[in-house]
Amino acid sequence: MNVFEQSLALHAQARGKIEINSKVKVESKEDLSLAYSPGVAEPCRVISANEDEVYTYTSKGNMVAVITDGSAVLGLGNIGPKAALPVMEGKSILLKQFAGVDSFPLCLDTQDPELIIQTCKLLAPSLGGINLEDISAPRCVEIERRLIEEMDIPVFHDDQHGTAIVVSAALINACQLTDRKLEDLKVVVSGTGAAGSSIIKMLNQLGVGDIIGYNIDGIVHRDKIDRYDFLTKELVEITNKENFIGDDTLASALVGADVFIGVSVANIVTPEMVRSMNKDPFIFAMANPNPEIMPEDALAGGALVVGTGRSDFPNQINNVLAFPGIFRGALDARATKINEEMKLAAAMAIASCVPEEELRADFIIPSPFDPKVAERVADAVKKVAKETGVARI
Amino acid sequence: MNVFEQSLALHAQARGKIEINSKVKVESKEDLSLAYSPGVAEPCRVISANEDEVYTYTSKGNMVAVITDGSAVLGLGNIGPKAALPVMEGKSILLKQFAGVDSFPLCLDTQDPELIIQTCKLLAPSLGGINLEDISAPRCVEIERRLIEEMDIPVFHDDQHGTAIVVSAALINACQLTDRKLEDLKVVVSGTGAAGSSIIKMLNQLGVGDIIGYNIDGIVHRDKIDRYDFLTKELVEITNKENFIGDDTLASALVGADVFIGVSVANIVTPEMVRSMNKDPFIFAMANPNPEIMPEDALAGGALVVGTGRSDFPNQINNVLAFPGIFRGALDARATKINEEMKLAAAMAIASCVPEEELRADFIIPSPFDPKVAERVADAVKKVAKETGVARI
Repeated sequence: MNVFEQSLALHAQARGKIEINSKVKVESKEDLSLAYSPGVAEPCRVISANEDEVYTYTSKGNMVAVITDGSAVLGLGNIGPKAALPVMEGKSILLKQFAGVDSFPLCLDTQDPELIIQTCKLLAPSLGGINLEDISAPRCVEIERRLIEEMDIPVFHDDQHGTAIVVSAALINACQLTDRKLEDLKVVVSGTGAAGSSIIKMLNQLGVGDIIGYNIDGIVHRDKIDRYDFLTKELVEITNKENFIGDDTLASALVGADVFIGVSVANIVTPEMVRSMNKDPFIFAMANPNPEIMPEDALAGGALVVGTGRSDFPNQINNVLAFPGIFRGALDARATKINEEMKLAAAMAIASCVPEEELRADFIIPSPFDPKVAERVADAVKKVAKETGVARI
Repeated sequence: MNVFEQSLALHAQARGKIEINSKVKVESKEDLSLAYSPGVAEPCRVISANEDEVYTYTSKGNMVAVITDGSAVLGLGNIGPKAALPVMEGKSILLKQFAGVDSFPLCLDTQDPELIIQTCKLLAPSLGGINLEDISAPRCVEIERRLIEEMDIPVFHDDQHGTAIVVSAALINACQLTDRKLEDLKVVVSGTGAAGSSIIKMLNQLGVGDIIGYNIDGIVHRDKIDRYDFLTKELVEITNKENFIGDDTLASALVGADVFIGVSVANIVTPEMVRSMNKDPFIFAMANPNPEIMPEDALAGGALVVGTGRSDFPNQINNVLAFPGIFRGALDARATKINEEMKLAAAMAIASCVPEEELRADFIIPSPFDPKVAERVADAVKKVAKETGVARI
């Protein structure tokens, strides 16, 4: 059986991947009288008198909803809420496995941003946080921004920020390995949707020298601003300092670049294009399941560091390095939001998990199964939440 | 420590009562590639091609949301969604413990019936069913009716039907014990809110001779119809065949009655009132935490069978006898709704769990810990779902 057949069998075996269990025993009348009626009235009364006590006496503080509308699921597109459920359950078990965060999937039967926003807000009382997932761009950005502004629990859209955080960690370590500085780098980012736009913003915050955005419309350029959505318009402000346009191809953008970051489509970068870049370039080709260039071709073109989204090649840029620890840290700080500083701290923490002496071109990113990762990310996120004033404890 | 102090300690100990766990292991890259990317794309594709497959490859088919707006929590009233959470978590662990049903609480930050209805409908894709809980009457009835009509998964408001089902079971067995017939009984029901109105409707369906409703406005009577909400108006049609009004007190209603059923307030029935009833009456005094009449007083007044909502007296009329098995049966049948026939079948199934030869005045209802109960209820509900055409498998 191939991976798909095996996965299908696994999913059918237990009818899905998550279950809800009791943390207390209910085996006698006495148990029942404490966990339920009449005893349960007491925590209710205490919370009614002081709402913050909901964190002491309920599961709220460790409970995240994984919410989607099924509009942009994996590489499968707009397959709707029911077909999205296996991915959401997957997210849920990863949150538990890697960071002890409880969560359940909610696949919404609407793709109207206002209804999604309203529903998330109505669900807040029993939730510690919200993980948005697989919502198409640019709607996802609008939805996340509104929720961050209007809710007092952390809201995080992993498709935007997860990849940005992990690729930033990879870039930091690649620079350290090769003694380069972020401010000297010219980076080309192919794909300016949910992930690409977040990557560009994070690299900008990290002080990367120049960033060229590239998408289906060619090179992101101020002269094209009239045809851009609000998200791409924002990128114009922070990319392409020299107003480069060349012949408006990815090939022309890559000439003399130090780094290629792809969150776009398979097979759009050739070894020749890599050869046209500066010496020893870094290639992070994360299109799924097939990268923008296969690692062997990137290396043949002269790439020094190559990463993909895949587990069967070295340097897997895997969101699971980021989101579990981020939620752990945000929940532990009882943060009202996950701000930019917390995301940057997560990237640094992930980078720190590969000790300097162990850094190699094919080992710039820790394994998802390195237990240090979620722990360090959580600690860093919690610390920065406090420093930036969004922590409530 | 008393039960309230012990309960508070229990709730604080684990920070709430529920957790979400993985049913599959995620300990290696291989596990990850099956439970998550890239393997998970396959169940997504299969469900996308045939929506019904969501029941094969996800947790939907066993997943219930326990939904409240916190408007009528236990006997505590309108304490809001956060303070309601301990009760919802309690419901959740009982569903798992007694019937293997997975569920999670959603406490909504609105008390607007339209918004509650809309939110429930938007959540449907990942849910197998909805248990409404602790929503005030008559809003709860409107909300439940609309959802039953407009959704294709079972929706059940336990506060309405749970008590009705269990007290019906108790009444059936009390009749059997004393060789009486339901159609010969005159029953007085005190309280005509969520539980009381559902009890009256179920007793009517069971063929009880006559039912007198009593509430804060006195005896339910057709001459008062102008001041009634829609719910009480409906009760006028099926109660008080003789248009009895007496002096419009509970005491006058009870004279010559065979059964008292209370879902109202403490201490409103005296031994003298019991004495005014027909010989060997049944008293089900379920106000919480203190019944309409204490069992010893009811017995002193000549009652033959006495039940309460409490676990420290015999014949506990406990909803937990009903709702876990009802959801088990409805989910197993993949029922589109829980109809009246299924509720009646549940009552019969509960009654059947006390064998005729073991029936005694202080043992007409099985223990919640009798493993037969949920199993028989589930089997009966599933069978009747098929017979009445609401089952999908």
